[in-house]
Amino acid sequence: MSNVRIGVIGAGNMGADHVTTLHRYVSGATVTLVADLNAERARSALVPGSRATTDPYALIADPEVDAVVIASHDTTHADLAIAALRAGKPVMCEKPLAPTLDECLRVAREEQQAGVGLLSLGFMRRFDPAYVELKAGLVGGACGTPLLMHCIARGVSSAPGATSEFSITGSAIHEFDIVPWLLNSPIIEVSWHAPRSTNIAPGLQDPQLILLRTADGVLTTVEVFLNARYGYDIRCEIAGERGTLALADPARLVKTSELAQSKAYPADWRPRFADAYRLELQAWVDAVATGQISTLAGARDGVLAAAVAEAVITSMKDGGRTIAIEVPGE
Amino acid sequence: MSNVRIGVIGAGNMGADHVTTLHRYVSGATVTLVADLNAERARSALVPGSRATTDPYALIADPEVDAVVIASHDTTHADLAIAALRAGKPVMCEKPLAPTLDECLRVAREEQQAGVGLLSLGFMRRFDPAYVELKAGLVGGACGTPLLMHCIARGVSSAPGATSEFSITGSAIHEFDIVPWLLNSPIIEVSWHAPRSTNIAPGLQDPQLILLRTADGVLTTVEVFLNARYGYDIRCEIAGERGTLALADPARLVKTSELAQSKAYPADWRPRFADAYRLELQAWVDAVATGQISTLAGARDGVLAAAVAEAVITSMKDGGRTIAIEVPGE
Amino acid sequence: MSNVRIGVIGAGNMGADHVTTLHRYVSGATVTLVADLNAERARSALVPGSRATTDPYALIADPEVDAVVIASHDTTHADLAIAALRAGKPVMCEKPLAPTLDECLRVAREEQQAGVGLLSLGFMRRFDPAYVELKAGLVGGACGTPLLMHCIARGVSSAPGATSEFSITGSAIHEFDIVPWLLNSPIIEVSWHAPRSTNIAPGLQDPQLILLRTADGVLTTVEVFLNARYGYDIRCEIAGERGTLALADPARLVKTSELAQSKAYPADWRPRFADAYRLELQAWVDAVATGQISTLAGARDGVLAAAVAEAVITSMKDGGRTIAIEVPGE
Amino acid sequence: MSNVRIGVIGAGNMGADHVTTLHRYVSGATVTLVADLNAERARSALVPGSRATTDPYALIADPEVDAVVIASHDTTHADLAIAALRAGKPVMCEKPLAPTLDECLRVAREEQQAGVGLLSLGFMRRFDPAYVELKAGLVGGACGTPLLMHCIARGVSSAPGATSEFSITGSAIHEFDIVPWLLNSPIIEVSWHAPRSTNIAPGLQDPQLILLRTADGVLTTVEVFLNARYGYDIRCEIAGERGTLALADPARLVKTSELAQSKAYPADWRPRFADAYRLELQAWVDAVATGQISTLAGARDGVLAAAVAEAVITSMKDGGRTIAIEVPGE
Repeated sequence: MSNVRIGVIGAGNMGADHVTTLHRYVSGATVTLVADLNAERARSALVPGSRATTDPYALIADPEVDAVVIASHDTTHADLAIAALRAGKPVMCEKPLAPTLDECLRVAREEQQAGVGLLSLGFMRRFDPAYVELKAGLVGGACGTPLLMHCIARGVSSAPGATSEFSITGSAIHEFDIVPWLLNSPIIEVSWHAPRSTNIAPGLQDPQLILLRTADGVLTTVEVFLNARYGYDIRCEIAGERGTLALADPARLVKTSELAQSKAYPADWRPRFADAYRLELQAWVDAVATGQISTLAGARDGVLAAAVAEAVITSMKDGGRTIAIEVPGE
Repeated sequence: MSNVRIGVIGAGNMGADHVTTLHRYVSGATVTLVADLNAERARSALVPGSRATTDPYALIADPEVDAVVIASHDTTHADLAIAALRAGKPVMCEKPLAPTLDECLRVAREEQQAGVGLLSLGFMRRFDPAYVELKAGLVGGACGTPLLMHCIARGVSSAPGATSEFSITGSAIHEFDIVPWLLNSPIIEVSWHAPRSTNIAPGLQDPQLILLRTADGVLTTVEVFLNARYGYDIRCEIAGERGTLALADPARLVKTSELAQSKAYPADWRPRFADAYRLELQAWVDAVATGQISTLAGARDGVLAAAVAEAVITSMKDGGRTIAIEVPGE
Repeated sequence: MSNVRIGVIGAGNMGADHVTTLHRYVSGATVTLVADLNAERARSALVPGSRATTDPYALIADPEVDAVVIASHDTTHADLAIAALRAGKPVMCEKPLAPTLDECLRVAREEQQAGVGLLSLGFMRRFDPAYVELKAGLVGGACGTPLLMHCIARGVSSAPGATSEFSITGSAIHEFDIVPWLLNSPIIEVSWHAPRSTNIAPGLQDPQLILLRTADGVLTTVEVFLNARYGYDIRCEIAGERGTLALADPARLVKTSELAQSKAYPADWRPRFADAYRLELQAWVDAVATGQISTLAGARDGVLAAAVAEAVITSMKDGGRTIAIEVPGE
Repeated sequence: MSNVRIGVIGAGNMGADHVTTLHRYVSGATVTLVADLNAERARSALVPGSRATTDPYALIADPEVDAVVIASHDTTHADLAIAALRAGKPVMCEKPLAPTLDECLRVAREEQQAGVGLLSLGFMRRFDPAYVELKAGLVGGACGTPLLMHCIARGVSSAPGATSEFSITGSAIHEFDIVPWLLNSPIIEVSWHAPRSTNIAPGLQDPQLILLRTADGVLTTVEVFLNARYGYDIRCEIAGERGTLALADPARLVKTSELAQSKAYPADWRPRFADAYRLELQAWVDAVATGQISTLAGARDGVLAAAVAEAVITSMKDGGRTIAIEVPGE
């Protein structure tokens, strides 16, 4: 297989993980450049055969970079994605496409010009083997016509300074992508509801409850709870006309001790979705190598998720009112 | 222990089960009379030492009846309960206390006259060992301060002619009792939401989703799905500040066959709550025998649950609007 | 139902539990006498309507005692059982029938004289709802013809002074009864094997592994581990020609906290088998009340289990040699 | 990373899977040649950039082959491995190293000459993330000192013509490698036991039960059941002084339907161990690329497993006698 030379922008947790995964576990990929504003951080993420830079635009322009991964701060996504598109280079942008719907639309319009499919979006759950099985089961009729879904996304603790809006744009946004992907039906209506809030994170409404309605009539409950403390725990159950399908506990071991049988939770998303990231990057590299449109989410998916996020925030600010989704054309 | 002589009104599924349970498994109880409008049905429910009648009021008046169980049609509960109260006999009325809030209030007022505690209400989940452990865990701080709850009540199929209102008054009403009992906080606000409805039960909105807010701020999602088909399945999870507590699957066996590992669901509520009914009846008989107020739910609990049910139905008829609960005094 | 007046011999844990269960939860039974050599202990186990004595033979002879429960020290079982049989009173003897095969045979011969069925034996697992379901599934063909079984019996810690023989006669003996009961086939061959032993209980071989072969050819592995520490945990799996059947975890709650999902184990057998004891006592009382032979294990079952235990101890002392079971006739 | 050019011998299920995995999912590897005696089968396994041959020795000698994977019939392993060793090329041989201990020893001696570490052996379970976690937990002290293990290996159906010996050399051999790997202690003693045999596979003793004792005193029960029918199911539990560790069910989904909650089993080993094979091949390729000794099992491990298998077969033929393991030096 011809080797795809990749430049990775951003050497934080996410970017450094991508560099390692591409280098160690992805067939047909070579990381040639790593960019980070912090030169030291860029260097610490290097793998054999790669160089560091502090200039992401230089990375995009570099002749040794065939394709670009964007894993820098959310606020930089749009500009960097547009630069890569203008350079005609395939780009895999971490979610979200951009923090606001307007910016997402700007990127999507740019992609229309540069070539639809040039931009792939890192909604990695679409590659998680469990979600893939869930969708296959649903499509295969294992539970009959879906009627209702329950999604839960819990983490150990929120990042310092996390806001109630961030729970939506940074965390629940995964649900805004995976729900329509599973159901093959867009979200058309949302409402936001506030449970009692934990005392652990003052100033943050946590947990939050969101109701989503897709065009097929299915109603989905989404619980987002950043400070659930007990572990990183992602659940999804679809109730249909003939039965239900749900993600199983992903723990690999059962332990007994001290009057209990237990299964471990990871402390964050990385162990839970390591395989999803690997398979996503492999699928993207395969598509780049063969010049095909990848099977990853695309710019339009980023726009749709951002539109849902905006509507949920509107509901949050308007007493939990039900908000219809309006997606501007591109 | 002195023996409590019990008359059971209603010899349908519920009543006949109570007769059997009292006779075979409850210490200190003797069933002396069984009443049913259908004489044949009354007779078929008899156990050694009991007589049949078609007149429930004669049963209440009978000198060989120390205490009365009401398990006849919901619409008869209020009048029969009042008759028993006026006769000064302890009465255990199956849920609901009555189909409407007004009737419930009428019974509650009557009990104020006859003696508070004379009426016990059959919200049997309060005696289910799993719910009892759940409450003990919650009270013991196992999950920290509760913030959010998820309740699911699914059945195999709805009774012929079941209406969307019946899902509330006949099924969800168990949640309207158990949620405040678990949290020790009354429900103050509700809203009703319609998922896509199954095609199996035309004319019935099924499933339904209800949001409950208790005075402590906890938000509870309640899914009621009468025609879930796959089995009778009751779930409850409490998410708190430090972790979660949930009912475990109650299946006693794990079976493997044909490329699957499986646990069975019962087809209806009776196997699931057989122990709860037994323990409830035992607690009631013990209280009657010693002249104490039982630990069962009482008239006031019936009023509160009915008030919630009425509010949910109001929300159902008013586009899912959030409805505040107003409980009239007695 | 006519009331059975019961005398309970032995007011230790087991006896006191039986008194309470009979009094509070068994229909048709009244505890009239409680005997213990320790007068204080006898008194502390009393329930309303019962008297204490230090003389078990006086209890057996008492005209207010219709039937006798023996829950005193294992070494007293045979003599007390024989006294009850000679008094012509139904007796429910806790397992084991006696510590040695010879004594068991002596009791069995005595019962032949007094009336077969007068003695019931407390192998309570036969009344555990999970084992009952397991047998029903097996008989119903859910796993096809049984080929192999795996049994595990683990406890938190052994009693002071427990010996390697006690693991057999006091703990594994439950398996020696339940395996043939499940398979409906007697044990014909055994061998004993020593895993590495825990350091926690010097002088005791713990855990132990026993192989049992029943007449139908099924091979059963039995692990007995008194000091497993993590909890009281009883498992049983049957592998058949078409699949397997196994006891499910009996925990009623799932808890999450501190990076784990957990289910609790009890610290000893009482919570695990509380329902089995209740149902066993109820079945015995029902049989006594109607003059029928009970569905409990009987003297012959006690003899068979003791014969297996003796053979296992022989294997233990003879380097794990395979020992054939010989059951003397009565 | 420098690219390792790999020749794969054998294009049956196992070989074809390896070709695909190397091509699609292993970083730094290129499959250049595929050999199979059946030319058509060799061709059907090709991936872009690879050529087919019917001559495995030509493959070994080919200048475009840096390293060799042997996945042909078990009986060919020894000769092919020796040829690769003599060619000085790193070789990854599927288990078993050879069907007999003598042949395994022959390969091991050859490797002594060619360079220790040149041969890697495909005991892929060592790379299964669940087994890796199990070992890490054990080493980390999660269950205390191990005392007893229970291993179960069940499949849907045996290959046509499978013999009782094949259950040992072809299936149980995985346990003979993984048990000492987990415990870090060699097997020193075995015995073989025959449960009732299924009627489905006449002429084959199935299931079989094997007891293994390791030098540390731990006793392991191994059930091998080729025709368990219900699914491919691999279990492992370690009981230690403070608790237990066991592999969890690997199913990714929970499904409810028709009065049951279920989790699927795969029909064979490939879905269960797909990740183990990928990680094993990746580790091997990484070692080859850097000239290091791989972390896979090696020739000595193949000899040890074969010695255990021979002893178990001796026990099988000698009435279940306990057999001590003697491993000839090399």
